[in-house]
Amino acid sequence: MSEPQDSTQPAARAGSPGPSKNELKKRAKEAEKAKKAAERAAEKVAKQEELKKAQALADENDVSKAFYGKLPLNQSQERSNRARNQISSLSNFVEQKVLLRARVQTLRAQGTKMVFFLFRQRIDTVQGLLLVEEGKVSKQMAKWAGNIADETIVLIEGTVKQTQEAVQSATVSDVEIHISQLHIIAEPQMKLAFSVPDASRPDGMEDPEKQFKNILLDTRLNNRVIDLRTPTNQAIFKLQAAVSELFRQFLGSNGFTEIHSPKLQGAATESGASVFKVSYFKGSAFLAQSPQLAKQMAIAADFERVYEIGPVFRAEDSNTHRHLTEFIGLDLEMAIEEHYHEVMELLDQLFLHIFKGLRESHRKEIETVGKQYPADEFKWREGPEGTLKLTFAQAVDLLVEDGVERSILDDINTENEKRLGRIVKAKYETDYFIIDKFPMELRPFYTMPDPNDHTVSNSYDFFMRGEEILSGAQRIHEPGLLMEQMRGKGVDPESMKGYVDAFRLGCPPHGGGGIGLERVLMLFLKLNNIRRATMFPRDPKRLEP
Amino acid sequence: MSEPQDSTQPAARAGSPGPSKNELKKRAKEAEKAKKAAERAAEKVAKQEELKKAQALADENDVSKAFYGKLPLNQSQERSNRARNQISSLSNFVEQKVLLRARVQTLRAQGTKMVFFLFRQRIDTVQGLLLVEEGKVSKQMAKWAGNIADETIVLIEGTVKQTQEAVQSATVSDVEIHISQLHIIAEPQMKLAFSVPDASRPDGMEDPEKQFKNILLDTRLNNRVIDLRTPTNQAIFKLQAAVSELFRQFLGSNGFTEIHSPKLQGAATESGASVFKVSYFKGSAFLAQSPQLAKQMAIAADFERVYEIGPVFRAEDSNTHRHLTEFIGLDLEMAIEEHYHEVMELLDQLFLHIFKGLRESHRKEIETVGKQYPADEFKWREGPEGTLKLTFAQAVDLLVEDGVERSILDDINTENEKRLGRIVKAKYETDYFIIDKFPMELRPFYTMPDPNDHTVSNSYDFFMRGEEILSGAQRIHEPGLLMEQMRGKGVDPESMKGYVDAFRLGCPPHGGGGIGLERVLMLFLKLNNIRRATMFPRDPKRLEP
Repeated sequence: MSEPQDSTQPAARAGSPGPSKNELKKRAKEAEKAKKAAERAAEKVAKQEELKKAQALADENDVSKAFYGKLPLNQSQERSNRARNQISSLSNFVEQKVLLRARVQTLRAQGTKMVFFLFRQRIDTVQGLLLVEEGKVSKQMAKWAGNIADETIVLIEGTVKQTQEAVQSATVSDVEIHISQLHIIAEPQMKLAFSVPDASRPDGMEDPEKQFKNILLDTRLNNRVIDLRTPTNQAIFKLQAAVSELFRQFLGSNGFTEIHSPKLQGAATESGASVFKVSYFKGSAFLAQSPQLAKQMAIAADFERVYEIGPVFRAEDSNTHRHLTEFIGLDLEMAIEEHYHEVMELLDQLFLHIFKGLRESHRKEIETVGKQYPADEFKWREGPEGTLKLTFAQAVDLLVEDGVERSILDDINTENEKRLGRIVKAKYETDYFIIDKFPMELRPFYTMPDPNDHTVSNSYDFFMRGEEILSGAQRIHEPGLLMEQMRGKGVDPESMKGYVDAFRLGCPPHGGGGIGLERVLMLFLKLNNIRRATMFPRDPKRLEP
Repeated sequence: MSEPQDSTQPAARAGSPGPSKNELKKRAKEAEKAKKAAERAAEKVAKQEELKKAQALADENDVSKAFYGKLPLNQSQERSNRARNQISSLSNFVEQKVLLRARVQTLRAQGTKMVFFLFRQRIDTVQGLLLVEEGKVSKQMAKWAGNIADETIVLIEGTVKQTQEAVQSATVSDVEIHISQLHIIAEPQMKLAFSVPDASRPDGMEDPEKQFKNILLDTRLNNRVIDLRTPTNQAIFKLQAAVSELFRQFLGSNGFTEIHSPKLQGAATESGASVFKVSYFKGSAFLAQSPQLAKQMAIAADFERVYEIGPVFRAEDSNTHRHLTEFIGLDLEMAIEEHYHEVMELLDQLFLHIFKGLRESHRKEIETVGKQYPADEFKWREGPEGTLKLTFAQAVDLLVEDGVERSILDDINTENEKRLGRIVKAKYETDYFIIDKFPMELRPFYTMPDPNDHTVSNSYDFFMRGEEILSGAQRIHEPGLLMEQMRGKGVDPESMKGYVDAFRLGCPPHGGGGIGLERVLMLFLKLNNIRRATMFPRDPKRLEP
């Protein structure tokens, strides 16, 4: 850079040969330019210094400095044992100080002095308001707060205030939190595949005018951790837990014992075709496709009434809305005194207990799910007439009356099951019914034949909204007949010796059934796809996450 | 056969050449012989006919004919809905008629007119008495009853009678059943490997003088259906169910949600070495060795507090008293507000709830097991001082004081764990304690380091009778630190992207633990082998039954 010319130097000295007039003009111009640049530079420096000073002063004067910011990584540094609040019960704390951890679902800064938040805990949301206030909340704090990312986990301290109007966007709408302190506990460090509000929109809202395209199920499942944060999913999995709990509750009070049977099996049992093979040290094992054999052996071992809740594995390459390669089986088996209807009726009572329990104690969750997946409320027959029970033959008659050709009704396929569901719903006003007495040839080898008609079996299926959710039967407890039936179905009794021997050791008459947990949930809530009823679903094409 | 000679024929005729005198004598002798044989034959026939007639007459006159015999195979032919009784409550039915299904554990005929039975239902037994009585119980019925095989399932009708002296062999000893009807429902069709009474004898009774050799565990497991019929095993598996129930009860009332995570995994996670590989259509899958990753992802998905009860799989070739390749994990995970001791203390309360629940509501089962596997009652500290909590460093000091060389105590091996258990029992009178703050290098990559000393971690183990039954910790919820720790332990973060991403999406601080159901049961009851606490155990050498 050239030295700035001294503009105070006289432009011409007498008696000396001087520059031309033009040259002088030019120099003067340059000098003026340089002067201005110098002035600007000086001004800039001064301004920066002023800004620095102002910032320092501002920081020094930020009364809120301790009231916001990012907390250090929690490594259990300290423990104050201060109680935390839940959004769901904030209405009971009006005008009181509260402390809570929540997600920032969304936020919106209004000018420089106000930030609105929507805080979320599971299925509950509440509005938060950060307002600049002399001596309490600084402008700096508001600016910082306005830049918090969605889905950040924050620690909020504030006062609960009654709202003048209901806050439409929040589930807790009669109060809001006036924030006095706000700290970040953890924040997203990658772009979210979609937002939680978008993932919570009903399927029906895929309306071009509304400028929202529904998030595809596959996208959801690929980003399941975000997807599971929707109130819908929080509610679905609360309800999933409730179904199991009601199942256990009913069976526990009816003399059943919970058992756990091994999933690793030495032989591919029942029907070898759909069993996963496992490398087992130097040999092989197979994954149990049901606890059928084990629970029957428990009956032969005098456990009388047993149930199991556990994974079952099906190596079927079925890519439908209702098939998974791994799902949770709710299985039970019980000794009978006289008749397999003892089991069938107990199973019916069990389902009624589950339906009633969901309706009575989980209305909030059912309504939450209904907002995203609207459904007619699940209906069943109550009162003295009881559950509708049809025989297979009667079910076929209903379909024939409805126009299905009898010749194809040796079995009722999925399509005709759904049709039957619609017929029954129209005629009997129920989404839940039982079909009894299936043809023998449709059932597995361990099914007890009817005493009078050997083409028919002592077996039943239960249906919800036209889909099978339970399959069960009286089982054969006599080894001679069992082996005969095995051979008839192409199963070598020698390949299942341990199982057959259980009956050679004397086994009481018994029956049972197996329920698919996710199917019950899917059909009760009408989710239309079993993956929505499974936290991390597995199908032939999905093993992650 | 030669025609019998006519002995009435004159021995000699005058005038004709006759046989010699000797010949005649011989003939006479033979004739006599033949006559006697004929008489005997006639007598035999007559006797047989007489017997037949007598039998026919007896059958016709068998007043008990309808009161005994083998029932036709139960195919649900009919249903009377007659109520059945339970052995356990027979004392309430003195002088009343009862009807029940039970096993014949043993029987003993006394003369031709009396048969004593010991009937069994699960852990209850009662004496039955069949007494010939004019017009009611025939001799034929008594004879038939005396030949019933052990372990036959019978339907008994009779009257409950107070006994004059307590029946020592029965659990219900103040009454017995005077049998009026007895029918076979199902009977063994093969030789039993051992009897239920033999399988019920305490291990300590392997005394040559008592002429009884204990049945080997392997023999029991090979014949598990019979073995499980012992009152001991009936009680063990009632208690197993109780542990799960108490676990759920406590967590349910503390805001936890039950979840189900997939056992089929796309990648061999955590530590690839001990994972079973599964053929999955055209590719491979792996069996989850814990629900660790899934339950942490549930926390990142805002479920707050979750638990799971399900099988976990370990492909470790460990053939010890406490290792299985498949066992039931009781796993939980929860968000923490400030400190991981929130989890540790909740886990402690959980264990105390389980211990108390077993002691208070399952005394009968614990006593039943104690008869076969005698044990000091499980002890824990109650009252204000609470559970003993040691740091790893304090535990090491205790071992050093006891004579173990400090140089080998970088880790506490199984042997020293047991030794520590004995030291603690002697010093603090408890079978249950906690060790906190394990060295970082002993824990998995997802363990949170201590804030002040990075060689130590925020992790803990729980112990029962000197064996570890729970391992847990605060987990790392910050993706940067998590990846750093993964690399430090030789795990490529890219291989577990879905898991790491869960933390990139913002995850609250959290911690948890995993409990082995069978271990808790084994140690509470002091069964000394985990296979005794598992219905159908799986180890590197056993996949059956």
